[in-house]
Amino acid sequence: MNEIPKPSVPAPDIIRCAAMDLVVTDLAASRAFYVDVLGLHVTEEDDEAIYLRSFEEFIHHNLVLRKGPVAAVAAFAYRVRTPEDVDRAEAYYQELGCRTERRADGFQKGFGDSVRVEDPLGFPYEFFYATEHAERLHQRYDLISAGELVRLDHFNQVTPDVPRGRKYLEDLGFRVTEDIQDDQGVTYAAWMQRKGTVHDTALTGGNGPRMHHIAFSTHEKHNIIQICDKLGALRMSDHIERGPGRHGVSNAFYLYITDPDGHRVEIYTQDYWTGDPDNPVITWDVHDNQRRDWWGNPVVPSWYTEASPVLDLDGNLVEVVERTDSSEMEVTIGADGFSYTRPGDDDGTYRGEASKGFKIGNQL
Amino acid sequence: MNEIPKPSVPAPDIIRCAAMDLVVTDLAASRAFYVDVLGLHVTEEDDEAIYLRSFEEFIHHNLVLRKGPVAAVAAFAYRVRTPEDVDRAEAYYQELGCRTERRADGFQKGFGDSVRVEDPLGFPYEFFYATEHAERLHQRYDLISAGELVRLDHFNQVTPDVPRGRKYLEDLGFRVTEDIQDDQGVTYAAWMQRKGTVHDTALTGGNGPRMHHIAFSTHEKHNIIQICDKLGALRMSDHIERGPGRHGVSNAFYLYITDPDGHRVEIYTQDYWTGDPDNPVITWDVHDNQRRDWWGNPVVPSWYTEASPVLDLDGNLVEVVERTDSSEMEVTIGADGFSYTRPGDDDGTYRGEASKGFKIGNQL
Amino acid sequence: MNEIPKPSVPAPDIIRCAAMDLVVTDLAASRAFYVDVLGLHVTEEDDEAIYLRSFEEFIHHNLVLRKGPVAAVAAFAYRVRTPEDVDRAEAYYQELGCRTERRADGFQKGFGDSVRVEDPLGFPYEFFYATEHAERLHQRYDLISAGELVRLDHFNQVTPDVPRGRKYLEDLGFRVTEDIQDDQGVTYAAWMQRKGTVHDTALTGGNGPRMHHIAFSTHEKHNIIQICDKLGALRMSDHIERGPGRHGVSNAFYLYITDPDGHRVEIYTQDYWTGDPDNPVITWDVHDNQRRDWWGNPVVPSWYTEASPVLDLDGNLVEVVERTDSSEMEVTIGADGFSYTRPGDDDGTYRGEASKGFKIGNQL
Amino acid sequence: MNEIPKPSVPAPDIIRCAAMDLVVTDLAASRAFYVDVLGLHVTEEDDEAIYLRSFEEFIHHNLVLRKGPVAAVAAFAYRVRTPEDVDRAEAYYQELGCRTERRADGFQKGFGDSVRVEDPLGFPYEFFYATEHAERLHQRYDLISAGELVRLDHFNQVTPDVPRGRKYLEDLGFRVTEDIQDDQGVTYAAWMQRKGTVHDTALTGGNGPRMHHIAFSTHEKHNIIQICDKLGALRMSDHIERGPGRHGVSNAFYLYITDPDGHRVEIYTQDYWTGDPDNPVITWDVHDNQRRDWWGNPVVPSWYTEASPVLDLDGNLVEVVERTDSSEMEVTIGADGFSYTRPGDDDGTYRGEASKGFKIGNQL
Repeated sequence: MNEIPKPSVPAPDIIRCAAMDLVVTDLAASRAFYVDVLGLHVTEEDDEAIYLRSFEEFIHHNLVLRKGPVAAVAAFAYRVRTPEDVDRAEAYYQELGCRTERRADGFQKGFGDSVRVEDPLGFPYEFFYATEHAERLHQRYDLISAGELVRLDHFNQVTPDVPRGRKYLEDLGFRVTEDIQDDQGVTYAAWMQRKGTVHDTALTGGNGPRMHHIAFSTHEKHNIIQICDKLGALRMSDHIERGPGRHGVSNAFYLYITDPDGHRVEIYTQDYWTGDPDNPVITWDVHDNQRRDWWGNPVVPSWYTEASPVLDLDGNLVEVVERTDSSEMEVTIGADGFSYTRPGDDDGTYRGEASKGFKIGNQL
Repeated sequence: MNEIPKPSVPAPDIIRCAAMDLVVTDLAASRAFYVDVLGLHVTEEDDEAIYLRSFEEFIHHNLVLRKGPVAAVAAFAYRVRTPEDVDRAEAYYQELGCRTERRADGFQKGFGDSVRVEDPLGFPYEFFYATEHAERLHQRYDLISAGELVRLDHFNQVTPDVPRGRKYLEDLGFRVTEDIQDDQGVTYAAWMQRKGTVHDTALTGGNGPRMHHIAFSTHEKHNIIQICDKLGALRMSDHIERGPGRHGVSNAFYLYITDPDGHRVEIYTQDYWTGDPDNPVITWDVHDNQRRDWWGNPVVPSWYTEASPVLDLDGNLVEVVERTDSSEMEVTIGADGFSYTRPGDDDGTYRGEASKGFKIGNQL
Repeated sequence: MNEIPKPSVPAPDIIRCAAMDLVVTDLAASRAFYVDVLGLHVTEEDDEAIYLRSFEEFIHHNLVLRKGPVAAVAAFAYRVRTPEDVDRAEAYYQELGCRTERRADGFQKGFGDSVRVEDPLGFPYEFFYATEHAERLHQRYDLISAGELVRLDHFNQVTPDVPRGRKYLEDLGFRVTEDIQDDQGVTYAAWMQRKGTVHDTALTGGNGPRMHHIAFSTHEKHNIIQICDKLGALRMSDHIERGPGRHGVSNAFYLYITDPDGHRVEIYTQDYWTGDPDNPVITWDVHDNQRRDWWGNPVVPSWYTEASPVLDLDGNLVEVVERTDSSEMEVTIGADGFSYTRPGDDDGTYRGEASKGFKIGNQL
Repeated sequence: MNEIPKPSVPAPDIIRCAAMDLVVTDLAASRAFYVDVLGLHVTEEDDEAIYLRSFEEFIHHNLVLRKGPVAAVAAFAYRVRTPEDVDRAEAYYQELGCRTERRADGFQKGFGDSVRVEDPLGFPYEFFYATEHAERLHQRYDLISAGELVRLDHFNQVTPDVPRGRKYLEDLGFRVTEDIQDDQGVTYAAWMQRKGTVHDTALTGGNGPRMHHIAFSTHEKHNIIQICDKLGALRMSDHIERGPGRHGVSNAFYLYITDPDGHRVEIYTQDYWTGDPDNPVITWDVHDNQRRDWWGNPVVPSWYTEASPVLDLDGNLVEVVERTDSSEMEVTIGADGFSYTRPGDDDGTYRGEASKGFKIGNQL
């Protein structure tokens, strides 16, 4: 696809990913999942929407559950450094020829002057500075749960052409921390940050625009295990899609679960500092079977194939464009269904070929 | 098969599972795995054998790595309460018509007067009281590793006829804590204890006699995660067979790894107290997909099919008898490869059938 | 004092410490503490008493909060192996010349046939086998709190003459795991077990009979930290008396808090297996400043001086007898208030005398 | 003292606190402490200096142990965003009338073009951009220890006039996150950040300029407990000065230890995100006894009184100026030695005055 040009006007100064506006089809079912099971804290709610924040958050919310006819993402909202950065965002996307909409009183309750855009990749991006403050609960240990979600960590977006999206986001001020490539020069995914963690958003190669997941972080690894244990106790184990495990990329301990609409949520903890300008970028070989799970546990196919649609500024579903580059799932799961290791990562001294008998592979 | 009669003489008073005599084909490779990777502590070693103990152990060892031509188990050793209990064990198995061998100076370095038997299930069992004491390292925090193994927790044995084996072990003084059955009355596995944990040994239905695994415990869950992380760092992730996860049965947090010979080792933590005489026995439905993994993660086929052979008192491999009862693997992994939940555990309110698309299932 | 003779009749077979019958002066305040703050689970309650159990317990309760005029302990209850062991306990104490009372329907709701005695040390001991079973919550991860108490671990009793009490409890079948002595042969404390942990009860030298504390265990260390954090959030930090820390004796990670009546509760995790007959007994030098806190943090005086009175079988306070042996507090806190190390544990190469400037010492 | 004027030239863009140049009197003893006990990783060393980095660091080092005649701090080094920011730093301090020294090849091995200054508070500050990269060990789980230090978190400086220092650091671009004041308007301490954590440095009111401590972070709380356990095992418990505990200010879990020269090191984990421009500043009342320890555990006097001297650019000790404002130690430890709570934090419903009997207080 055509390269996205860099605007002549300055990009807005983005602080961090701050909130997602998520459309759900059954508000009560979603509330049961995000509040009763996951323990997110309600800042405010009505019959149409529920505004949730994580334990350490002080802005109005990190997640809006908004009642709607079809499960989708209405906006990926980023907080910018100053009110003027909202103007910069508007001008920036207007020069890109993108449709933009400005609302002095915001699109989301608790947020003020904001601009929403249909970005060059087809995603609904939102930029805001003004927000009401909510009580930061970080020392309310009388309210903390065993699996407490303490921060919003990142978004993950599915897009067909990762290098194209990466160039656009780098122009916007994001910095790449890690990516996955092959020796043919195909890029399968890229992680990009503003706040000094491994990412504020990531691009996953696939049919898009779609939302792959939203991620919240916990203090420690046992908090993530407790979320699994609780889902088991509630006989909701089918909501555990993948993990827990240790990521190769990002080095974080992770879990992927799905909400009542199938929106994917990652629980994530302990990546590393990336805020130095010369932070070393780590490129992973798509054939390294520890890239997505450091322990070599295979990625379930649904994780590659399923994602949530996104909405345009009129609230209509954005059409999905197919990825033409090779698919990570196809190149990593061979006829025997086994993710093989990079040449040189020879475990043969231990089990050789027999080792490949493990895990999903010989299921087939 | 014929029922095993209960001897008229008293059974020995077994304290706990205490040590395994394990034959390995490459002593250096096994030492690298158990000492360098897992961090077990060497009490004593020579060119023929290495004697290892866990962090909190005070008896001479919990594991012997013995050089031999074929990877197998030479003995499952239990500690008895008094020297006289060794006599009782000898008499008990003689009345059972089992071959026994008594050695005043023991079969394993550091252990004294012991008896070894070829038990009715074909397993080499050993009973001893006398042992040299080694330094208990429980406060040597200068030696503890991030993934420290602190105790030997249990053995797990594969046998074709679980009820037959269970009756024999109950006569011997073991008490069942949990088991897996189906509504046809087939028993797939049983867990049995002496020391007040969920088990000192378990019987897993399958072709046997074979050793399914030996299990060591850690203090906390993060220690088990570290073992995975370390295997990843050493590019030995193929040694991770299954997990980590939370067991339904036993409720412990677990991991299964394989040593250089393919002997399976479980790392295990946090089951519960079972030492009361009326401890409630928990029976799991084989069709409950949370029985083996509380989070519903599927059991990899190798976990069901692979196990280590055992040796008779002459050091020859014991012939394996096929299981005739139905196989847990076959009854739980259907055409779609998905372990389905017990009727009534329907999560359909959340994802219905679609949920079955997760995990191994839709691989096929 | 006179030695306590060993009865000719067999001692009851005690399984474990099982429950404490605790008199509190304000039932609502105590409920707020044990249920709302500590999260113990209510099996049953009425206007007079609340019956609480820990997360993994299956017997009716581990703690009774009973409304009364004065804060005290009405009974230390032990579970025995068989109904006949209740008869044995009755006969055993009758031969000791102790007052006993037998109740076919029990002294505590949920428990059946029991005997209560005024033991030779003046403590109200109770022995029972029969109990109603409550739901074991060990897999109810939907109910677990961040600081969950999972088991009753032990009692701790204050008595003037530790060797005298130790001999009596050893006759009763307890086995000593650790003790604190000095080179004059004075014993300051002893830890004794039945269930294979470091203790089911301990004797602390001091004016007695009094109850020093009751201890519940958690799964991991962070659970104990959470209890402190929660007390801080509730502005109840004055309820934290000592710790958290690592014990020298027992090696457990610990915390001491006090309930609304000043009854002391220990939160405890990760001691070690002691169930072998030849388990090595560890004797600590009273002058080793790491014996009570492995990190050398000083013991606050209140921990040595404060304890709860106990009741006789008529519900009257038992008179306290003064300790005549030297006091651990006096011998370990010198003129400078500093707990000094055992000769040879000199860290002088690092900070020498200056090190004594740390901690409580130079407060004075 | 006179207010420090804001220069007309722009301040350098500081990324984060990056390294401390620490003078020690016995290099071998310091190496044993920082490498063998704490497990910091040696990037490079010779007879004069040892260059150490934390587990997740990629710049050359975070700490230099430099052999010298007197234990002191030679420099607090900050990393700036660009090479030009080193020029800005030089010009900034020159306008402040401070002595500066520029070295194209750096003051510390592994760092390039740097400027060192004697700042208005008397501290030796260093600014650099250029650095050699070292292997980032963040996935070297084969090297991680149970008490691993993963990042340099912050510095802490003692200065007599906190508001004066605060104004100077705010001009330099630091943002205050928390502080401690009293109702007389006295400021006792202030925490200031650049990298989005609670601080990159803090000002503690007292005789200065002196270095109060340098802090490294761990992944989880149990890692800090392990450091205490290891010091206990090595019979080095006198090196534990204060903690572990939970800070009120910063909300981090903490421990303070002292190195062979008495330099104080904090081990720290889990504070919160502060990178938003309107991050709420938390002001603590000096009379809130949970401000320094959330659990109300008292601060040992040495923590208030002891600190390390600093050196000027000639390597001579900088003269210490006495604090004239009231002392936090004096105002918080009354005649009874007890840190009392803020009016309104009434725990009286639980223990009232009696509660004050706990902890250090009634030692006296």
